[in-house]
Amino acid sequence: MSLRRLCLLAEPELRRVKRAFSSMMPLDGCRDVRLRAVVADVLAHPGSLARAQLAYGLGVRCGLDPERALKLGVAVEYFHSASLIFDDMPSMDDATERRGRPCPHVAYGEAAATLGALSLVTRAYALLWDAIGASPQAAALVGECLGVSGILDGQARDVHFRKRAADVSEIVEVEAAKTVPLVRLAMVLPAVVAGEDAETLDRLERLASAWGLAYQILDDFKDRLMSPEESGKTAGRDDGLGRPSLPALAGPRRALARLRRLLAEARSIVDALSSEESERWEALESLQAFLEEEAREVPRRLAMVEQEAA
Amino acid sequence: MSLRRLCLLAEPELRRVKRAFSSMMPLDGCRDVRLRAVVADVLAHPGSLARAQLAYGLGVRCGLDPERALKLGVAVEYFHSASLIFDDMPSMDDATERRGRPCPHVAYGEAAATLGALSLVTRAYALLWDAIGASPQAAALVGECLGVSGILDGQARDVHFRKRAADVSEIVEVEAAKTVPLVRLAMVLPAVVAGEDAETLDRLERLASAWGLAYQILDDFKDRLMSPEESGKTAGRDDGLGRPSLPALAGPRRALARLRRLLAEARSIVDALSSEESERWEALESLQAFLEEEAREVPRRLAMVEQEAA
Repeated sequence: MSLRRLCLLAEPELRRVKRAFSSMMPLDGCRDVRLRAVVADVLAHPGSLARAQLAYGLGVRCGLDPERALKLGVAVEYFHSASLIFDDMPSMDDATERRGRPCPHVAYGEAAATLGALSLVTRAYALLWDAIGASPQAAALVGECLGVSGILDGQARDVHFRKRAADVSEIVEVEAAKTVPLVRLAMVLPAVVAGEDAETLDRLERLASAWGLAYQILDDFKDRLMSPEESGKTAGRDDGLGRPSLPALAGPRRALARLRRLLAEARSIVDALSSEESERWEALESLQAFLEEEAREVPRRLAMVEQEAA
Repeated sequence: MSLRRLCLLAEPELRRVKRAFSSMMPLDGCRDVRLRAVVADVLAHPGSLARAQLAYGLGVRCGLDPERALKLGVAVEYFHSASLIFDDMPSMDDATERRGRPCPHVAYGEAAATLGALSLVTRAYALLWDAIGASPQAAALVGECLGVSGILDGQARDVHFRKRAADVSEIVEVEAAKTVPLVRLAMVLPAVVAGEDAETLDRLERLASAWGLAYQILDDFKDRLMSPEESGKTAGRDDGLGRPSLPALAGPRRALARLRRLLAEARSIVDALSSEESERWEALESLQAFLEEEAREVPRRLAMVEQEAA
């Protein structure tokens, strides 16, 4: 809800992740001017790099070689960047601004934007492959999160959502389906690759589910309560397009209550992990604190909006 | 040019490839009706499966386990199917028919078509990963063919092509850039995975370049000389959109001469390979014979069109 920067890593590590995000996608062989411009634009405006920070922070603390953890983090972030390009297209959310700048399809045309997003996807797979090698467990997780039953199904259900027919549990399901897969990938994949035990993986899975949905509800509030100048993106797309949004469809009070329950659940998992080895899970502690702070901002914003309306 | 079916494999093997194409993409977990419909539609209408036949035929004869060769072949074919969905979109070729049926974006909307194509891409990567495991050489080839310097750059240059500014060498370059990468993947990847020696890989690389461009020139002729009823797809897209097309821009005679030179070059490579071990390369012999037959059909078609015009 605020514009605070998300910092899960110490400054030198954050710089390293930022550098890797812009340098792990070589454009030397790309001849097409517009395609190159789309990708260069993404690389130059990385956003908060939440998923890359999380994957890198977790991976390194779980004992992965830093270069390998970087590749995992940047790969997840390229998938995320590609998903934003597709989501903003006229056939989906029809947005025009993102991160305070024109969307790629507005600046360079839909064809270049599509091919640019695909370039990020193919590069992300190359990085994953390189970082993971032959690990059936990791490959299965990637397939689950990115495949036709993962984020793509979530995004399809989001776009094709019918407001009238939905109850709260369906809204929650669709909201989770479009957001949880990449959070899972950022959190569970580095732990799988690092060989964490089944109990830890299970905790991380539950944490990813709680956070993914909490993150999405916060994003929905942002869509309703922040101006485009503040958020840097086209506002009110959820309402305007009839997309599933818990604050819009179940009301802000119920959505806030759900958000608090999710964060309480997440808090208990983070505390359980940290009680065993606090250093290892410090990135989780930082993200939990960040989300709790964001959630505290929501009622303040709601009161402001209600005051203005009165 | 004709509607002859491309058969590079014996009937039982061809059936096996067809079955694999429709069964290697499980849709169980996909809840969205339109997304599922797009993918199911692709799986039910596989086209000629040229790339899958080639990859499977080559892979098995080079000693790969059949299941592994199938995965490689189906993966390349899923990439190809996805590329057709994207190419037909309004922002690219704006076609409405393919394989005698409405394009997915026409039947199910652009959002579902985009997400369906992405589902094919993600599944293709999962299959490749599974079939290849940790092989830096194979992964590098995949990255080269599918990345921002491979087919995506070729497709971008095709869409953004400026007729007036181009000379023949640039047309040829763009035509090759959009077609050769998947032919390379179908031919060179199974050989790399099977551990063929450097000389053989070099021959297959040169053959993929010659065939890829020859295939594209034949496709350009098809776009000009066949009706939509015959070809099953929207006709005249190249001319209508000013796309690079050697027959259109350099004239049919020069294009035909180039096609013949490419097939003569390919013939010498196929003969050199077959002279050493004819059984191993029988799929190559069949494809070469098919392309030669197609090329012989071109002057007949051209004469018909000229007669009609006179």
